[in-house]
Amino acid sequence: MLGTMLAELQRTAPLVHCITNYVTANDCANVLLACGASPIMADDPAEAAEITALARGLTLNLGTLSRQKVPALLASGQTANRLGLPAVLDPVGAGASVFRTQTAQQLLQQVQFAAVRGNASEIRALCSGGGDSRGVDAASSDAITDTTLAGRLTLAKQFALEHHTVTAMTGELDLVTDGERAYVVRNGTPLLRKVTGAGCMLSVLTGAFLAANPDTPLEAAAAAVCMMGLCGQQAALRCGGQDGSGSFRVYLIDAISTLTPDELEQGARYEVY
Amino acid sequence: MLGTMLAELQRTAPLVHCITNYVTANDCANVLLACGASPIMADDPAEAAEITALARGLTLNLGTLSRQKVPALLASGQTANRLGLPAVLDPVGAGASVFRTQTAQQLLQQVQFAAVRGNASEIRALCSGGGDSRGVDAASSDAITDTTLAGRLTLAKQFALEHHTVTAMTGELDLVTDGERAYVVRNGTPLLRKVTGAGCMLSVLTGAFLAANPDTPLEAAAAAVCMMGLCGQQAALRCGGQDGSGSFRVYLIDAISTLTPDELEQGARYEVY
Amino acid sequence: MLGTMLAELQRTAPLVHCITNYVTANDCANVLLACGASPIMADDPAEAAEITALARGLTLNLGTLSRQKVPALLASGQTANRLGLPAVLDPVGAGASVFRTQTAQQLLQQVQFAAVRGNASEIRALCSGGGDSRGVDAASSDAITDTTLAGRLTLAKQFALEHHTVTAMTGELDLVTDGERAYVVRNGTPLLRKVTGAGCMLSVLTGAFLAANPDTPLEAAAAAVCMMGLCGQQAALRCGGQDGSGSFRVYLIDAISTLTPDELEQGARYEVY
Repeated sequence: MLGTMLAELQRTAPLVHCITNYVTANDCANVLLACGASPIMADDPAEAAEITALARGLTLNLGTLSRQKVPALLASGQTANRLGLPAVLDPVGAGASVFRTQTAQQLLQQVQFAAVRGNASEIRALCSGGGDSRGVDAASSDAITDTTLAGRLTLAKQFALEHHTVTAMTGELDLVTDGERAYVVRNGTPLLRKVTGAGCMLSVLTGAFLAANPDTPLEAAAAAVCMMGLCGQQAALRCGGQDGSGSFRVYLIDAISTLTPDELEQGARYEVY
Repeated sequence: MLGTMLAELQRTAPLVHCITNYVTANDCANVLLACGASPIMADDPAEAAEITALARGLTLNLGTLSRQKVPALLASGQTANRLGLPAVLDPVGAGASVFRTQTAQQLLQQVQFAAVRGNASEIRALCSGGGDSRGVDAASSDAITDTTLAGRLTLAKQFALEHHTVTAMTGELDLVTDGERAYVVRNGTPLLRKVTGAGCMLSVLTGAFLAANPDTPLEAAAAAVCMMGLCGQQAALRCGGQDGSGSFRVYLIDAISTLTPDELEQGARYEVY
Repeated sequence: MLGTMLAELQRTAPLVHCITNYVTANDCANVLLACGASPIMADDPAEAAEITALARGLTLNLGTLSRQKVPALLASGQTANRLGLPAVLDPVGAGASVFRTQTAQQLLQQVQFAAVRGNASEIRALCSGGGDSRGVDAASSDAITDTTLAGRLTLAKQFALEHHTVTAMTGELDLVTDGERAYVVRNGTPLLRKVTGAGCMLSVLTGAFLAANPDTPLEAAAAAVCMMGLCGQQAALRCGGQDGSGSFRVYLIDAISTLTPDELEQGARYEVY
């Protein structure tokens, strides 16, 4: 099932418009090319909506947010909605500052997202009831493990239902849910936390999978989450000798650029609830 | 002939001022260092022209264009003209939005560029008669192959003559022309399309070759185009085992940093018309 | 002594807020993760000070400076001072433009920095008496070698005393001084000048060491300088065959992510004056 999502992505090579932070924009563009999609980055309100209209999907990322970008985020999101293109939100740092939290909330109110990808702290900060985030990493109290699985799943489903969106809540375990069904994904490696932008890369990968598979957003998002985790595992296995996080990052892009639909189908580790 | 262009670049180590997008700025800086030049990035109108005046050449790139940067692009371009420094334009996404097309046209009207490097869709969008671009990649109808060579060459020459500039129009084949003579370059590899910023990197490399060889812009631009393609070939040859686009990109920078003038002279594949 | 600085960094994993340029922001984030710290990047005045207050340290970098960022630099610096968090300044390009020089001076007047990391040209431009910088690389007349050591040490100490800060002045040799004692560091490799952002990476590494060791800023900064140089040496040793500056950069991050406190203690090469 998840393998066919990747096959469709590789067959259709969708153009994905990204409004994203400057820290990981290069990685995001390379991940999109690696998975078979095509990136276009544009964040000035003078052109953002026009660029969205050229694309098959949209990913909005709140890292290094600036006030100048906010109108572009809104205009691109609304254009995607108007044209029926799947839009993905990565609320980087929601909860860490009033500006990020409020911008994320404004986007969630004015744009219908097909999927939202964040860590548990970010998702919690955007749920009614809310909470505190510390920086861009999940608070340790927000770890997603087998012990905390039930509570996290409740949170992810609540968020999905409140915002009529697929939630991809990632951490040690990853949860993907539309509020009814949920994938608990067990792919991944701790090394993914040692490279910047693993979350951003997963969000644009999710955007690519959704652009190619707009009618099955839950499965598309689950495929993206499994693929990032599985490619991380492959990259970790390849590390040896003097390799550290620099080589791991190169191997990760290598794996994304060479993974086949069959390998994704075979390597994905998940349960469906 | 082209080897001596690289020898001069390595001998003079020119400082090249770049106003460029944030997606590939890091790659561009590393390519400039790798080829023997030195980068300086500055894009605020408060200092852009002053920085240009310190440099030996200028490269302007319209990726992730913002309205704040437009005055800096114009001021730096005009400063380069006033001081006799070669300026290179990369009109990323011209044709994809009104903002990009108009900014590129404004620059072409107010700045005399020594060279313009773009794909066929971008160049066509800026020729009288114009056309549509789709994103930042050339439309498939704009491929440059032996079949389409005659028409593309006519387009590249028209652009060169209209703007009194050297045109480097890149794709499957690459064309470099001053409107009279033309190099048809057959170096390169399809893998270059799997890493973001190959075009941007070629544009700053062109800027470096022109900064070191300002009196022979056609040959300097041809040398840059051959070098990027040849280094791509070397990187592709080195790829094996589990290598994918991540390793290819590392090998590409490796090749740029180690290519000798003799190797460029021997490895360049082109015909002159 | 220096090894314990790294042990403390790895033990405490401090969150470091960076306001930095978009050319090397990705490298800086990866260096922070590699050394055991955690990065957060935010540069809009709407949130910068709030983000600083979440962190254990702050690094300000003037590369690709924009006028919009200046209020954020000042607000974050002052917040760090108010909360007693160590702040590090990297005055990239001071002396190259009036805008950069004046912004650096304004920051030095309004913020108390725990350390300033720059090349000799940048430090000289900010000393009373001043001087000219050329771009972001040190002028060749500003090389730090055994021949010029005495004069450079005088300059570094003068700067440290004027600004009540630790000065890390880096070049062929590196000098770290609080105005009284001085470390002359002999780690390093010329290859570090072939990758962009080696200085920026060292500055955030310094920020991480200071965040973890706020009471011993001189030793913390010396440890950062030795570590960057030593990791450069390890990366250079690993280069072979077709490796060039692309592979060197990957190996550098590898080395930073795997260096142990004992290896730093053993490999640091310095004299204390």
